[in-house]
Parts: sequence; C-alpha cells; structure tokens
Amino acid sequence: MIVEERLRAMGLQLPPPLAVPPGVRLPFTPVRVVGDRAIVSGHGPQNADGSSAGPYGKVGAEVSVGEAYEAARGTALSILGDLSRALGDLDRIAAWVRVFGMVASAPGFDRQPAVINGFSDLVLEVFGPEVGAHARSAVGMAELPFGLPVEIEAEVTFRA
Amino acid sequence: MIVEERLRAMGLQLPPPLAVPPGVRLPFTPVRVVGDRAIVSGHGPQNADGSSAGPYGKVGAEVSVGEAYEAARGTALSILGDLSRALGDLDRIAAWVRVFGMVASAPGFDRQPAVINGFSDLVLEVFGPEVGAHARSAVGMAELPFGLPVEIEAEVTFRA
Amino acid sequence: MIVEERLRAMGLQLPPPLAVPPGVRLPFTPVRVVGDRAIVSGHGPQNADGSSAGPYGKVGAEVSVGEAYEAARGTALSILGDLSRALGDLDRIAAWVRVFGMVASAPGFDRQPAVINGFSDLVLEVFGPEVGAHARSAVGMAELPFGLPVEIEAEVTFRA
Repeated sequence: MIVEERLRAMGLQLPPPLAVPPGVRLPFTPVRVVGDRAIVSGHGPQNADGSSAGPYGKVGAEVSVGEAYEAARGTALSILGDLSRALGDLDRIAAWVRVFGMVASAPGFDRQPAVINGFSDLVLEVFGPEVGAHARSAVGMAELPFGLPVEIEAEVTFRA
Repeated sequence: MIVEERLRAMGLQLPPPLAVPPGVRLPFTPVRVVGDRAIVSGHGPQNADGSSAGPYGKVGAEVSVGEAYEAARGTALSILGDLSRALGDLDRIAAWVRVFGMVASAPGFDRQPAVINGFSDLVLEVFGPEVGAHARSAVGMAELPFGLPVEIEAEVTFRA
Repeated sequence: MIVEERLRAMGLQLPPPLAVPPGVRLPFTPVRVVGDRAIVSGHGPQNADGSSAGPYGKVGAEVSVGEAYEAARGTALSILGDLSRALGDLDRIAAWVRVFGMVASAPGFDRQPAVINGFSDLVLEVFGPEVGAHARSAVGMAELPFGLPVEIEAEVTFRA
C-alpha cells in the first residue's frame, strides 16, 4: 500500500463514496472497470463525510484560481477514493492515461490549466513521473452540475 | 437479438442513419470500431426519417428539463441505431464503458445530471445493470451544433 | 515515412514541441502512450517556432469560421508533430480513433462541425479513409486556455 501510505504521510485522507444530495439520482458508476482500464466518471471535491464540497460558482468570478486549484486537488482525492474502492489497492494503478479537466469559467477566464494543475500536481507527487504521467485537457465550461467550479474525468490502466 | 426485441417490446424504434442537413459536411464516422472497442461520435436525437429532432435551444431557457430528458433518451436510440449497424447485433455489446453527456445550458442551469439520466435510464433498462453500467460525466456546454440541447458521445466494448 | 513525405509534398511542416509561455506550468505529457494506444492532450495551433499561434477569441465574434477552420488544420499539424516525436514515425499509426473538437463559441454560434472539419479534412487527406476514419464530437466551449478559439484532443492506435 505504498500510494496510500504516501497519502497518509502527506496528511491526506480519501473521502468515502459520494453522499448523493436528496432528490438527485445518479444512475451510473463512479469507476467503470473494463479489461485493464478503469474509466472514472466526472468527479468534484468532497468533504470528509462524503458530501460535495464547496466553494461553488464560476472560476474568475465567485471562485479564485487558488480556491479552484484546491478544488482540483480535492477532486484528485475523490477520484483516488473511488479508484481505491474499485481496484482494492491504488498500487495496482499501472499508468494514468487521460485527465479531462473541466472548469466552470466566468466570461474571459482563460487560465484553466492553472486550476487543473491542482489535480496533476497531486497525481504526479503521489504516483511519480512514470506512473503519474498523463495526457490532459483543461477547458472552460459554461456550467457544471450543482454549481461545481471544477469537474474532472479520467482514465487509468491497472495491473491484474 | 434480445436487446432489439426488448426495444420493440417497449415500443421503441431505432432511427436510420443521420440525414445530414443540406450544406453541412460531417467527414467522420458515427461509430469507430478498433479492436473490441466501439467509440461513438457525438449524437443528438433523430426523427423516424433520420433527420435531426428538436426541440432546439438551451436547457433552462427554451428547453425544459423534461424535454431535455426526452432528447437524451432519443439520443440513446440514435446511438443504438448506429451501434446496431456497426456491430450487426446489439447483443454483441459486452459493456457500456463511458458516456459523456453534454447539455447546452442557459446561464445558471446546473441540473445536467437530471437531463442525461434520460440516456442512462434507457441504457440500463435495455442492457441491464451489468452490461449497462457506465462511467459518466454530465456537463454544461456554451453551445452545441445546430442548436441541439443535448449531445452525447460514448464508448462500448463488444464480443467477437 | 509515407505520411511525412505526403505532408512535405503538401508544403506542410510539423512544428517543434510547444514553447510554453512564461509563467505557465503544464505538468502533463502531450502524448501518453499506453499499450497500443496514444492518447493526445488538448492541442491548439502553433507557429513554426513552437509558440502558440493566433488568432485568439471566440468563433462567431472575433474569429471567423474560415480562420477557425485554419486553426483546426494547424492543430492537426501540432498533434502530428507530437505524435511523430512520441511514436518515432507517423506511419506506425494504425487507426485514428477519437477526435474531440472544442470550439470557443460566441453566444449563438452553432457551426462547430464546420470548424473542426479543418482537422478531419487534413487527417483524412494525409492518412486516407481507412486509417484516418475517426469518431468525433465538435462542441462549443465557454472558454479555452490562453484565449484559443480551437482546442482538440484525440486518440490513435499504433503498430509495434
């Protein structure tokens, strides 16, 4: 459990499954495992109790780049939590493949990469440059569910 | 042809290939088959004659959540039509993998998941919880081609 | 080197790696190779010196469809440059798989396919209809990094 020990040493904790807000129905799986691929649904950051974490709003307006960087870092932890439950052990991850970083953007805000770096930095710190390397897009959305400022979907491969 | 019988029993019909509007050129394939993967281009709902189906506009403004849910359900039928032609038989689908649901969103509209549920609900009803399970994002776009309120791209794996 | 000869015969040149603007940090890889798949990060067009190429702004406002078509064509060259460095030889590409074409769109602009055709047309011209065929979405983003009017991510498979 090298990756999970590393997270603990960094003082980071993986959140439990998303506590779905009342009245909301999410008929899909957080991680779909097919062959040696694990495809990860769009995630946002969570609180320690599993609920969706703020801040909410558009980056470049209600939410600052620094806050959105932290939200992207928190999203990495949400995704690691679901990958840990889907794969049993994060050390099974063989390669990060694709990261699609979506930033709810106020008009004229074009620093999406600075936001999604919060995700990439954590993945590279925890998994190292070989396993952690990934292709990435960081782009500006009109709106995201529940007013999230950041939503990220991803794909990894893993070892049997 | 279990899946196609199930669709017929539900009174649902798969539309023919998209009737491309005059003056429009779409130089790509609706479904790209590579190995055991079928990658599905962005689709919208169709009429029975293959033409693009309305309503058009932004969800949260001209188009209601209920209408957009139906558009997402219609998009599932469009995709099933193209998958049926690409694979010969929908029973060959081994696993739904990834669904990327895009909703043209009026400012402040953040219930994209409630819209894309129209797609997920149909896939799960027709394919069941094991084959039909999928990773998903449901997000808010500034604009979609031809004024579509919903566009969905997807990936499935299939059996030889 | 059939593909690269064809590009030369067309008078086209592949740009060098992206010259990252000062003060920007992009902690990801332009192409992630996993098994026989090469997943390509979001790219925009480049100048011959590797810097990001204009025009900048929203399509349908500051940027015309014709200019954006050229930007999408330039993006294809950027991606081919990075694929060439990642794979050693573009002739190794076995199949174009997925093209996700993002167009920063002014309100009401819905001709994203006409823009991303600049990418698809070049790929099909250079690789031919069998290798070059691809699934595609062409959609309207609220904002793109650095004011880009077009950003494209992609996936190809390749031969050992």
